[in-house]
Amino acid sequence: MVDTGMKIYFCGSIRGGRQLASDYQRIIEMLQQFGLVLTEHLGDDREIETKDRILTDVQIHNRDMDWVRESDMVVAEVTIPSLGVGYEIGRAIELGKPILCLFRSDSKFYLSAMIGGSENVTLARYKNLLQLPAPIEEFISKRAPRHTS
Amino acid sequence: MVDTGMKIYFCGSIRGGRQLASDYQRIIEMLQQFGLVLTEHLGDDREIETKDRILTDVQIHNRDMDWVRESDMVVAEVTIPSLGVGYEIGRAIELGKPILCLFRSDSKFYLSAMIGGSENVTLARYKNLLQLPAPIEEFISKRAPRHTS
Repeated sequence: MVDTGMKIYFCGSIRGGRQLASDYQRIIEMLQQFGLVLTEHLGDDREIETKDRILTDVQIHNRDMDWVRESDMVVAEVTIPSLGVGYEIGRAIELGKPILCLFRSDSKFYLSAMIGGSENVTLARYKNLLQLPAPIEEFISKRAPRHTS
Repeated sequence: MVDTGMKIYFCGSIRGGRQLASDYQRIIEMLQQFGLVLTEHLGDDREIETKDRILTDVQIHNRDMDWVRESDMVVAEVTIPSLGVGYEIGRAIELGKPILCLFRSDSKFYLSAMIGGSENVTLARYKNLLQLPAPIEEFISKRAPRHTS
């Protein structure tokens, strides 16, 4: 991980479905090129088990909201419909955070109009993970003043 | 519909899955005992087709967010994971709206910790629709100053 001082909050589905967990892990690794990913456990079921199963829902909620507030930006993988991901995006908008949403366009899922139609988020559609480094780098370099030299 | 002047924003899954559409319709009818349900089309696929298919995602998003702002309270059926429902709840919290979430506890779904653990929402778990009028009435009568006489 590069220590740029930048903090990134990554969102992906947990209780909504874990089919893309290994993709979340790859995306987290891409984001770690730019700064600290506060939710780096999200790509690994065993890590989630270790970190979250000992917590109540209130503790998980409050820890995650503290992280959203503390973050410089939010990056959300939005392919699998997830209440928690939608909730975090909604709250992050009102908190003024820059938000990048990533949607896998060849999936069986339909993207919510509330994400596809929100002018407060940047949306990147992709068909494979190799297409992600470019929009991620573009988003971060434009929106992270502490990252640009 | 009773004209109490109260406006209720009801949220349910659209693109996340329509398995509970007929339940949404029943819940909307319960809410209409207390005021105007701004999203009364949500229980009826044909109505959604008529109202939304002619709109872009940006138009749908902006109409729905205008309704959330205009509403006196938000009632969300949160059983089917939905990005849009989560997004609307997250934004409604920051806008200071009272929020009631309804979760069907005998479903195959797991409720997000971001909803189950949010101290900004009132959560009612239910096993059949007959259990809903009581928590709905309790929620509305406590939180709608214009409704209480």
